Amino acid sequence: MSDPSFLSTLHRSSALRRRRFLQALGTGALGASAFGAGSIPDAGRPASKPTAVPPSPQVSLQTLSGAAARTRNLMPVPAAVEWREGALALNSGFNAAFARHRDRRLEAALTRTLSSLARRTGLAIDPFLRAQPATANLVVDCRGAGSALPSLEDDESYTLEIGPQQARIVSATVYGALRGLQTLLQLPEAQGSGYVLPAARIADRPRFPWRGMLLDCSRHFQPLENVRRTLECLAAFKYNVFHWHLSDDQGFRVESRHHPLLTRKGSDGLFYTQAEIRETIAFAADRGIRILPEFDMPAHSTSWLVGYPFLGSASGPYHIARRFGIHNGVMDPTRASTYRFLNSFFAEMTELFPDAYFHIGGDENNGHDWTVNQRIQAYMRRHRIANTHDLQAMFNRRIEPLVRRHGKKMMGWEEILNPHLPHEIMVEAWRSVPALAEIVQHGYQGILAAGYYLDLMWPAEQHYAVDPIPADSPLNASERKRVVGCEACMWGEYVPPQTLDSHIWPRAAAIAERFWSPGTVTDVDDMYRRMEAASLQLEDLGSTHRTNQDRLLRWFARGEDTRPLKTLVQAVEPTKGYDRRSMPYNVFTPPDWMYYAVPPESPARRGFPRLVNAFLRRPTAAAPKQRLLALFAHWQQAYAGYQPLVARTPPQLQMLQPLYAALTQCAGVGETCVNAIAAGQRLTPAQAAAARRRLERATQPAADLMLIVIPGLQTLLERAAET
Amino acid sequence: MSDPSFLSTLHRSSALRRRRFLQALGTGALGASAFGAGSIPDAGRPASKPTAVPPSPQVSLQTLSGAAARTRNLMPVPAAVEWREGALALNSGFNAAFARHRDRRLEAALTRTLSSLARRTGLAIDPFLRAQPATANLVVDCRGAGSALPSLEDDESYTLEIGPQQARIVSATVYGALRGLQTLLQLPEAQGSGYVLPAARIADRPRFPWRGMLLDCSRHFQPLENVRRTLECLAAFKYNVFHWHLSDDQGFRVESRHHPLLTRKGSDGLFYTQAEIRETIAFAADRGIRILPEFDMPAHSTSWLVGYPFLGSASGPYHIARRFGIHNGVMDPTRASTYRFLNSFFAEMTELFPDAYFHIGGDENNGHDWTVNQRIQAYMRRHRIANTHDLQAMFNRRIEPLVRRHGKKMMGWEEILNPHLPHEIMVEAWRSVPALAEIVQHGYQGILAAGYYLDLMWPAEQHYAVDPIPADSPLNASERKRVVGCEACMWGEYVPPQTLDSHIWPRAAAIAERFWSPGTVTDVDDMYRRMEAASLQLEDLGSTHRTNQDRLLRWFARGEDTRPLKTLVQAVEPTKGYDRRSMPYNVFTPPDWMYYAVPPESPARRGFPRLVNAFLRRPTAAAPKQRLLALFAHWQQAYAGYQPLVARTPPQLQMLQPLYAALTQCAGVGETCVNAIAAGQRLTPAQAAAARRRLERATQPAADLMLIVIPGLQTLLERAAET
Repeated sequence: MSDPSFLSTLHRSSALRRRRFLQALGTGALGASAFGAGSIPDAGRPASKPTAVPPSPQVSLQTLSGAAARTRNLMPVPAAVEWREGALALNSGFNAAFARHRDRRLEAALTRTLSSLARRTGLAIDPFLRAQPATANLVVDCRGAGSALPSLEDDESYTLEIGPQQARIVSATVYGALRGLQTLLQLPEAQGSGYVLPAARIADRPRFPWRGMLLDCSRHFQPLENVRRTLECLAAFKYNVFHWHLSDDQGFRVESRHHPLLTRKGSDGLFYTQAEIRETIAFAADRGIRILPEFDMPAHSTSWLVGYPFLGSASGPYHIARRFGIHNGVMDPTRASTYRFLNSFFAEMTELFPDAYFHIGGDENNGHDWTVNQRIQAYMRRHRIANTHDLQAMFNRRIEPLVRRHGKKMMGWEEILNPHLPHEIMVEAWRSVPALAEIVQHGYQGILAAGYYLDLMWPAEQHYAVDPIPADSPLNASERKRVVGCEACMWGEYVPPQTLDSHIWPRAAAIAERFWSPGTVTDVDDMYRRMEAASLQLEDLGSTHRTNQDRLLRWFARGEDTRPLKTLVQAVEPTKGYDRRSMPYNVFTPPDWMYYAVPPESPARRGFPRLVNAFLRRPTAAAPKQRLLALFAHWQQAYAGYQPLVARTPPQLQMLQPLYAALTQCAGVGETCVNAIAAGQRLTPAQAAAARRRLERATQPAADLMLIVIPGLQTLLERAAET
Repeated sequence: MSDPSFLSTLHRSSALRRRRFLQALGTGALGASAFGAGSIPDAGRPASKPTAVPPSPQVSLQTLSGAAARTRNLMPVPAAVEWREGALALNSGFNAAFARHRDRRLEAALTRTLSSLARRTGLAIDPFLRAQPATANLVVDCRGAGSALPSLEDDESYTLEIGPQQARIVSATVYGALRGLQTLLQLPEAQGSGYVLPAARIADRPRFPWRGMLLDCSRHFQPLENVRRTLECLAAFKYNVFHWHLSDDQGFRVESRHHPLLTRKGSDGLFYTQAEIRETIAFAADRGIRILPEFDMPAHSTSWLVGYPFLGSASGPYHIARRFGIHNGVMDPTRASTYRFLNSFFAEMTELFPDAYFHIGGDENNGHDWTVNQRIQAYMRRHRIANTHDLQAMFNRRIEPLVRRHGKKMMGWEEILNPHLPHEIMVEAWRSVPALAEIVQHGYQGILAAGYYLDLMWPAEQHYAVDPIPADSPLNASERKRVVGCEACMWGEYVPPQTLDSHIWPRAAAIAERFWSPGTVTDVDDMYRRMEAASLQLEDLGSTHRTNQDRLLRWFARGEDTRPLKTLVQAVEPTKGYDRRSMPYNVFTPPDWMYYAVPPESPARRGFPRLVNAFLRRPTAAAPKQRLLALFAHWQQAYAGYQPLVARTPPQLQMLQPLYAALTQCAGVGETCVNAIAAGQRLTPAQAAAARRRLERATQPAADLMLIVIPGLQTLLERAAET
């Protein structure tokens, strides 16, 4: 790899900001996905319609059909499933046994599984009860322990066979058994007066061995209970890497005994002790999840420089960053003291974190402080270093051996790529799928983060459509093998702790399927159906991704009726990408704004067009027409109900005024169109033009929210205009 | 105190079980409290009425009147409040300063306060910002630290003065400042386009120095995050003692290094490490809360005996209890080895827990294993011990010096009372207010738990009406001084972790007022108004007391409409006392039953009678009549909507069938009565008798739930029958 020209594309584009690039991606793909079919959402179901609820189809073994009959509630879909006749009945005496290998991790996992099974069925199952393999309801037949701590090389395959008398999980390692137990937990179904597990044979293994989630705990510190809850939920969807982004400009989050000022001056007191880190590693390992620490350098490091200004490239003093965006603070790569410090730091942290990989970040260095520092400029001239990119390449070349000396493989964002680095390193592509291809074509192992940034507020299907090895991939077989996996990324700028779950879940369950299931699993409707089941499962695990909304609406309403707020919330989504501008967001912005009550993806995104299409298929039928008109009436009433609430939480609610006004406008357009279409009439060109202008104005975001019902209304309008 | 006859009443009644006794108390007082006025509840506000929400009164400085103008949202009500003209405006630059004493606890408390203030106003306040006292928006003027750890002797008084430029808290100790900061946090009000603190002078101090909450973490282990969240919420309402019930038949919950089998065999792995205990003590101390450990003995001790059967009075082996109720397992008080063990245990635990008091339980010993053990019987004859009560008295007399030798004051439930024990001990009355009077009349200090048992599922007003020193108290001044306080008790049999918050909150906020505020604060309507504000405040602190309900209903409905379930939930309450019989409740019963979705007190308890009375005052007016009829229609529709849901979660929903049927019957009776009254007609005696029978049948509980709307319907019926 003597020719560095292969890096030119990567280096050229590093002037782009990670965020801006993905923002563009996000905006571009939005319109196309707004018309998918799906389950009827709340927005298509006026909350205040006083009719009795219509009977709904029973979910039972007998009535499943289509994709649901193939995949049931399984997410991610296993590699191979064969459903069989019959079922294993569940009762409070349900018990379990180990057939071969048995250890503390397996015992704990089985106890957790039985406790979950109890919650999912209401049965008072004794989770500590162990039976004989011959007679047990559930047998875990694990051939050996596998590695003591989870690693990239683990065999995670398993088979799960369920018959009328017994369910049996067979695996080569504890990790396979853990995955099989999670599959089992997605299978209980109502039948008659109780629950059963449907008879089946499942043979499963992951598509990729690295299935990660990055959690940024620097921009907003996430309390340990959030981290643990996230790990519990990740395990349920077979994630196996927790990429812990532990330092950035806004805070250094790990106790360091070698360098105590990192937290004493750089954390506001918000950090994890080494004991907590060890507990968390054990907690994750028990669930088959590796913990990959990331300490971002040389940029994204302001919080280090507060306590150790001599590491920095400017004269200081430095202060913990309170605003977001790219900061100038950057380590000085020209001083030996920087490497001495980092060597001592690596010695401590590589011992604390047992994983084979150690992530040094390496992204988004704007080069400012290097460019304005005369001493650094002189150094660059002396050493014939052409630009700050090359200076950073030198930094990476110098720290890689330090990391390796402490027994770790270095990992970094795609900017670290350099032919002088050994092929053992791992490179994470955050800008595009082609960038990943380029990485592996040049002999490096790579994982894909691009397309899985949860903070972009994309709908699940948009992430779901991103494949690290798409159908038209130019990669050959050996190159494909170097695509070792993917990571969903939860960057933390806009994620106060109370809102973490709704930023991650349930979308990350759909992403997990892309990481685990065969690439042929691409049925979006079925994905959404199962994501809804996953959402309930997540709530059972303690996730607050749905409950936080009602809590916030109650808070805003101060004891009054929350329905006028809920109506709006169900008709909007956050704006996409990073274009948040309604408030001066910083690390102190509290999570008590409507923005944080709105999930990244509204059920109305798919539900409202579905309702519109149902109407358009039979414009003379009463039911869809009445539901649409009731919904429009509901939107109009919401505005009236909103007014008196503004006095209770003024700033939080006042900024919603344009959205209520727009929703009222939309309701008017919708009503006009529905009545015209149902009557077989058409709008005059002038009427249609006026309606188009009204919808156009209604697309304007406010409070960083945008109406999600516009595309459905546009469909109605074009039909009313064309007939 | 040589005459033991004063104990006769206590000893006689110890044959009663604590639970049964209080159950009787609970049932007796229910009916009388069902007709209070209050805010309009959800049940009086049909969720599916499609009219716009009527404008509601603005909560602002200008419009407060009546009790609300005196107490605003303060809970507990301070000893003295004087509201003044004007207000202190809040903005994102809000800052604070210390005037005199300043330490780590105060810094942390101020940072928490400013963070909370940010959440309550939406303002991006920097909680770390400190200003100069002369110009700061908030000054904490604390004269000294007070004790290093909270104690019974602390001065908790403070004054809070709010003017247009500055708010100032003045206190003698850190503890007073902590209380004042909590008061401040209840004061932000909307005004114009922002928030203000109303100008005021508050001079406050607690009525009782011991204001506790018992949390039973043995019957159900409560994860540490539940304990911490509970402490955070307790502090908000000025509780200052966390009584930690750490061992019982169902589990031993503290790591012991002297006696490791206590947890290794007696905890199912569910216990707190000593490091976690220390952290929790520090967490509580930072909030001015003492931690009082309780290790119940000689009975309620099965979990000890699993690992150390030689402590027991039967031959063993012992097993961790899985069912609730009184168990026979009891320590052997006749062996020296028992006292050697306990002495070593006390040595370890009195060092771990710094509080001056050490609670040894001492309650509910059924004497069975002592009576059937020939060796113990022989011992009793040899030592002229007449009965098992006297044997337990001997046990207490022997352990009290052990506790004292380790520097602690012994505390126990009222059964421990005995004239041979020194007056330094603390006695906790759990059976009645007169029992407390008897304790203090005989020279002991006492606290009252009777009347504050949260697991009885009483409405808040019933607890609120219990006063440790009632108006007709026979106690003289010095006896009154020995009434040092009260404790709310959260026994854990029916409290899986997910349901802890809804069992405690918001009722415990009203109880806190009884413990802190002057005894003259007894306005029940105003209490309920402020309890609703407290409920929102609790949600802001992370309490799940409301969110858990929606989560469960979603789980039961498996993605379908939850409204048919919500309608029922809003019309029922749990049965009172300990009469739970719909399931074989044990420690493994999961929290996924409708019972756990229903709060102890329904808003309909006060709201439905209020709506009925509004109608009866003006039977010819359209509005109340229509609201009642809409509500009855809603009840009837709920039954239809419930049917298809049963197939989804069969056992959990099938048992509700009788309640839906009863609610439908109630709707029919209500409709008939409303129409008759509005038309000026009366029911025939036969019609009235039939309606009475229907209501009578509808009172039958099912699924441990009972309709709470019967009293309101009876009012309607009697009016319809009499006119």
